[in-house]
Amino acid sequence: MNEFKPVRFVDLALEGQFWRERLETVLTRTIPSQHVQLGKHGILQSLTLPNRPPSFRDNGHDFVQLFWDSDVGKWIEAASYALSHRSDADMVARIEKIVDDLEKAQAPDGYLNCWYLQRDPDKRWTNLRDNHELYNLGHLLEGGIAYFVATGQRRLLCILERYVDHVRKTFGPNPGQKRGYCGHQEIELALVKLYRLTGERKHLDLAAYFINERGRQPHYFDQEAVARGESPQDFWVERFEYSQSHKPVREQTIVVGHAVRAMYMFSAMADLAAELNDDSLKKACELLWADVMSSKIYITSGLGPAGGNEGFTEAHDLPNDTAYAETCASVALIFWAHRMLHFDLDGRYADVMERALFNGALTGLSRDGRHYFYTNPLDSDGRHSRWAWHTCPCCTMNLSRLIASVGGYFVSASEDAIAFHLYGGISTNIQLAGANVFLRETSAYPLSGSIRIEVSPDAAAEFTVKLRIPGWAHEAKASVGGHVVDVTACTRNGYLVISRLWTRGDIIALDLPMAPERIYAHPLVKQDIGRVALKRGPLVYCVEEVDNPGSRVQQLKLPREAKIETVERGDLFDGVVTLTASAQRVEDQSWGDSLYRNAPPIASDYQLTALPYYLWNNRAKGSMQVWLLES
Amino acid sequence: MNEFKPVRFVDLALEGQFWRERLETVLTRTIPSQHVQLGKHGILQSLTLPNRPPSFRDNGHDFVQLFWDSDVGKWIEAASYALSHRSDADMVARIEKIVDDLEKAQAPDGYLNCWYLQRDPDKRWTNLRDNHELYNLGHLLEGGIAYFVATGQRRLLCILERYVDHVRKTFGPNPGQKRGYCGHQEIELALVKLYRLTGERKHLDLAAYFINERGRQPHYFDQEAVARGESPQDFWVERFEYSQSHKPVREQTIVVGHAVRAMYMFSAMADLAAELNDDSLKKACELLWADVMSSKIYITSGLGPAGGNEGFTEAHDLPNDTAYAETCASVALIFWAHRMLHFDLDGRYADVMERALFNGALTGLSRDGRHYFYTNPLDSDGRHSRWAWHTCPCCTMNLSRLIASVGGYFVSASEDAIAFHLYGGISTNIQLAGANVFLRETSAYPLSGSIRIEVSPDAAAEFTVKLRIPGWAHEAKASVGGHVVDVTACTRNGYLVISRLWTRGDIIALDLPMAPERIYAHPLVKQDIGRVALKRGPLVYCVEEVDNPGSRVQQLKLPREAKIETVERGDLFDGVVTLTASAQRVEDQSWGDSLYRNAPPIASDYQLTALPYYLWNNRAKGSMQVWLLES
Repeated sequence: MNEFKPVRFVDLALEGQFWRERLETVLTRTIPSQHVQLGKHGILQSLTLPNRPPSFRDNGHDFVQLFWDSDVGKWIEAASYALSHRSDADMVARIEKIVDDLEKAQAPDGYLNCWYLQRDPDKRWTNLRDNHELYNLGHLLEGGIAYFVATGQRRLLCILERYVDHVRKTFGPNPGQKRGYCGHQEIELALVKLYRLTGERKHLDLAAYFINERGRQPHYFDQEAVARGESPQDFWVERFEYSQSHKPVREQTIVVGHAVRAMYMFSAMADLAAELNDDSLKKACELLWADVMSSKIYITSGLGPAGGNEGFTEAHDLPNDTAYAETCASVALIFWAHRMLHFDLDGRYADVMERALFNGALTGLSRDGRHYFYTNPLDSDGRHSRWAWHTCPCCTMNLSRLIASVGGYFVSASEDAIAFHLYGGISTNIQLAGANVFLRETSAYPLSGSIRIEVSPDAAAEFTVKLRIPGWAHEAKASVGGHVVDVTACTRNGYLVISRLWTRGDIIALDLPMAPERIYAHPLVKQDIGRVALKRGPLVYCVEEVDNPGSRVQQLKLPREAKIETVERGDLFDGVVTLTASAQRVEDQSWGDSLYRNAPPIASDYQLTALPYYLWNNRAKGSMQVWLLES
Repeated sequence: MNEFKPVRFVDLALEGQFWRERLETVLTRTIPSQHVQLGKHGILQSLTLPNRPPSFRDNGHDFVQLFWDSDVGKWIEAASYALSHRSDADMVARIEKIVDDLEKAQAPDGYLNCWYLQRDPDKRWTNLRDNHELYNLGHLLEGGIAYFVATGQRRLLCILERYVDHVRKTFGPNPGQKRGYCGHQEIELALVKLYRLTGERKHLDLAAYFINERGRQPHYFDQEAVARGESPQDFWVERFEYSQSHKPVREQTIVVGHAVRAMYMFSAMADLAAELNDDSLKKACELLWADVMSSKIYITSGLGPAGGNEGFTEAHDLPNDTAYAETCASVALIFWAHRMLHFDLDGRYADVMERALFNGALTGLSRDGRHYFYTNPLDSDGRHSRWAWHTCPCCTMNLSRLIASVGGYFVSASEDAIAFHLYGGISTNIQLAGANVFLRETSAYPLSGSIRIEVSPDAAAEFTVKLRIPGWAHEAKASVGGHVVDVTACTRNGYLVISRLWTRGDIIALDLPMAPERIYAHPLVKQDIGRVALKRGPLVYCVEEVDNPGSRVQQLKLPREAKIETVERGDLFDGVVTLTASAQRVEDQSWGDSLYRNAPPIASDYQLTALPYYLWNNRAKGSMQVWLLES
C-alpha cells in the first residue's frame, strides 16, 4: 500500500546540534545508567531463575512487576540502537549476559516469561487480560530484532523465535488452541517487525490474528476469568474499553481506555493495513485518528488525561494540572503517526509526529539524561518533578529507544522521490531514479526555520524532492538554486513537491518563518477558556518559575494585545529561543491574611518569559504553566 | 468555661418557611427512606448474627463495610430526633428491632461490634488503626442517647453503656490495658454526650484519655501492627497524618489528613476544653481553626480537596472540579464551629457555622430528600450528580441527623442573656434573669435580611439580647421598639448587644442588607486566579446550565464592572432569590472542527443567572460553576 518507506536511522547521519546533543546524551548517559537501574531494582536479577527477585512495595502491597521482561526487552532495543551507532564490547557483554539468563530460563517448549516461570509455571496463559505475557514477548522480540540488526548476533532472536513458535501453537482458531490475545497490545507490532526482518508470512498472520480476534464475542477475557474460577464482573477496571477490547477493532471509532495500549494497537493496525492492503483497518485508523485529534489530545501531544485508567475519558476533557499524559503514550503516538504518514504521505500526520516528538516525548527526559517524567501535566504548582527511576519504568526505555533511533523519522524515500518530514541537520546517501544521491539538510531547526538542503546525485537525474511545509508555518518560502519556488502552488498534502533534473551540488533553500503564535483551545475544553498558549515553530512554550521568579507562574496574565518577542539565549541549554512579553502579575504579597475578600487582588506589570515546554524542570523545582490567563 | 449553652432543638420551634420545609422533608421522606436503604443494602441484616450480610464489590475486591454499625447508629440518632419532633410508633418499632438484634449480638463481656463478632471474634481490638470499632461504638452511643432522650427508652443505652464499660476496662494506662485509641475519631464526642446525659465523670475521663493518648510515642498503631505480624511501614496511607495521630493533639497546629476525622477530633477537643477548663486544648483548637480558615477551606465551606486521603493537602490547594469536600466534613465543621462559638461567643465562629450549614452541608441533600452528594465540587462539566445511595453511606445520615436537630444551632442562653446565632423564624420560651421569656424571631432569612424579634417576658426583666451581625453584613441597622440602635457602637465580637429592661411585646427590628457581593480568593489559590464568586447574605451562588442553557457554564465570563441584580423567584424551589448580570459567553458553536487554533473564540453577550449553590443539580444534570471567569 505504501509508496514511501522510511530511511533507516543507520543509513542517515544526524549532524545538527539539537539532535546530536540528545543522541549523545542518550548513548553515553541514559542507556548505560538505565542498565545500572535495572540491576539496582532487581529487574536483571529477575531473569535468573529460580531466584525470586526483591520485592517492591506500593500502597502496602507487595508486588514484583509482571512486565519486567518488557523493560529488559526495551533496554536491549535501545542498547542495540546504540550499538548500531558505534560498537561497544561492554554493552555487548551486558546484553549477552541477559541472553544467557533468558536461554537458561526458557522452558523446553519455548515458553519464556520469567514472572510465571519462577512463580506459577502451571498458570501460564491463564490471565491474558491482566498479566502481560504477550506484551513482554513483544518487547523482548523488538529487542532481539534490534540486537540482531546491530550485531548480526542471532542467539537472542532464535530464543524468541522459539517462543513465538510456542505462541503460534498456543493461540489460534483451531481445536485445542486458545482464542486469546494480550490485554496490553504490543506483540502485534513486534511480529510485524519480525515479518519484515525474516519475510516469514506466519509472523504477519499471527499479528493479524491477534488484531482480528480482539473484542470478539463471546469475550475471551470473560471465558478466561470463568476458567480461573472468577466472576467476569470482578474485572478490576470493570470495562473492556480499558484494553480496547470492548468491540472488534474495525468497529472502533472512538478512542477509549489506556492510552499506551491504544497507541500501540493503532500502530499495529496501521502496520497490518499497509502490509495486507487492508482498507478496513486503514479506515478504522483514520476514524480513530480523527477522534483523537479533534477532542482528545493536549496541545503538547499528551494523551490520556486520567490516572485512573492511565488513559482517555470524554471528548474535550483535558485538565491541565491533573493531566496524566504518560510519556509512553506520546512516544507511541510518534509510532502511530509515522505509520499513518506513510499511507498517503499526508503532512498532517507528520505535523502530529513532530509535535509529539518535540513536546510530548522529549519532555520526558532531563537534560542530564538520567531523570524522567512519567506523567506530563501542563500546569504544576511546583510539586511535580522528574524522578531518577519509577516502580513502573516503562517510559524510561521508551525514551531511549526513540531517541537512539530518531534519525529514522526524518526522511522517507520511494523509487524516484525523497520526502523530508523533519528538519534539524542530517545527511544520507540513497538511490533515487537510478542515481546515488547524497543529501544534506542543514539547519538550526527547531530554533530556526532557515533550512538548506544540498541535493547531489552522482550523475544528473530526474526525481522528486518533497519538503514538508508544517501546518504551523505561514508564508513559507523556498528556492532551488536561487530560483524562487511558488510554495503555495507547489504544495500537496503538506509537502512542497519539487520534481526536476537534479545535478551535483543543487541547493534548496527553505524558509519556515517561526513567528511566535498564540494558540487557543476549543471552548469545550473548559480548563482552557480565557487562556492562551504560546508556540513557536514546532515548540509549545511554558512559563516556569525559575524564569519568572517572585510568585507562582499561575499568577501571570498575558494581555491579548501584548507583543510576543523572541530572545536568542545561547547561554541556556546549549541555545534556546525564549519568548517574552509585557504581562501582569496578580500579587499575593499585598493580599493580607484572609482567604477570601470582596476586593480583587492587585495586578502589577511583569515581564513574562516563556521557555519551550520540553525543557521545564531542568534547573529548579517550581511552578509551571502552559495555558496562561489572558487579560 | 462556657457561659452560654445552646437552647436544645426540642425546646425551640422552627417556624420559618425555609427550615420548616427542610425539616419536614427530612422527617417525612429522608429518614424513612434511609431505613429502606439500610435494609436494601444488607446493613440492617448485618446486625443479625451469625448471618453473613451480602457482600459489596469495589474494584473487584469483596468487602462488607467495617462501619455499618455506625450507619445504623447515625440512623437511630436521626430517627430519634424525628421522634422528639413527633411520636411515631412505626419508627419506634423499627428502632426496637435494631435494639433486639444488638442485644442478641452483644458478647457476654459487653463487646458489640457486628463486623468482628461475625467474622473474627478473636481479632477484636487488633487493628484500631483501620477497623473503626470505637468509631462504630461512638455513633451507636449517640443514637442510643438520642433515643433515650426522645422516648425515655433505656434498653439501647444500657446495651451501649455495658459496651462502654468493656471499653473502659480494655483501654487505659494500667497494666493489662491497651494504650490505644481509634483510627477514626468519634467515640470521644459520644462519650462527652454520655457524660452530659448521665453526669458520670468516668465517661469524660475516657474521652480525655483517648484524646490525650493520641499521637504519643511509641506509636500505638505501630505496636499494634507488629503484634499483628505486619510491618508498620505497610500502613496503606503511609503516614499517621491521615488520622491526626502523627503527634499529640496539643502539638498539632496545621490541619492534616482525613477531613471528617479532623473535624470530629477538633469538636471533641473543644468539648473537653470546655468541660475540663483545659486552655491548652482550647489553644490548640484555635490554632488549628486559624490554619483551616486562612488557607484550607473552600468558599462553600467544603473541606479536604483530595480524594486520595479524603482530606487536606497543602495550604491554598483548592481545586474546584476535583474537590472532594465530603459532605460529612462540612457537617462536622458545623459541630466544631458550634463548640468554638460557645467558648467566647465570638461571631466569627458563627459565620463559619452558618456558611457551612447553608453551603457545605445543605448541598448534600436533594430537594426530594432522597438523593445525596458525597463529594462537592465547585465546578462540574455535568458528570457529577446526586446518588440515591452509596457504598459508604456516611453522609446521608449525617445530613438527616443535622437537619432533624438544626433548631439546636439557632440560639444560646446564659442566665441573663440570650444570643441569636442564626435567623430564619423560630420561637422559644426560656428562663432569663428569673423571668419566663417568650421569644419569636420572624424572617424570610436567608432570602431576606429583614428580621423581627419579639421579646416577651412574663414580667418586666433586665437581661441581654445578643444578635449576631454576620461578617458578610455591611451597614446592618437595628431598632428596639422603634428606637434606633447604633449597631457599630453596640456590636462586640460580632454580636449586637442590647441590655435593657424588657417588657411583654418588645420588638427588635434588625436589617441585614443582602446586596449581592463579588468574592475573590487569595492569589495563591491558583485555580481561582482571574475568577470571581457571587454571594448574597450567607449563600454562595453558582451558575448552573439549566438556568444558563446553550452551552457549558464554564464558557461564561462576568465583566468586573457588570451590575449584579437580584430577582425574587417565588416559582422556583418554594421561593429563591437568583442573581443576574450582563455577561459574555464564549461560543463553541462557531468554533469549527479543530481542537486548537490561532484565532481566539468569539464571545457574545449573555444574561447570566446564578442560583444558590446548595440548590444545584435538583432539576437536571448539567454543568455548574462557582468561580466564574472575570473579564
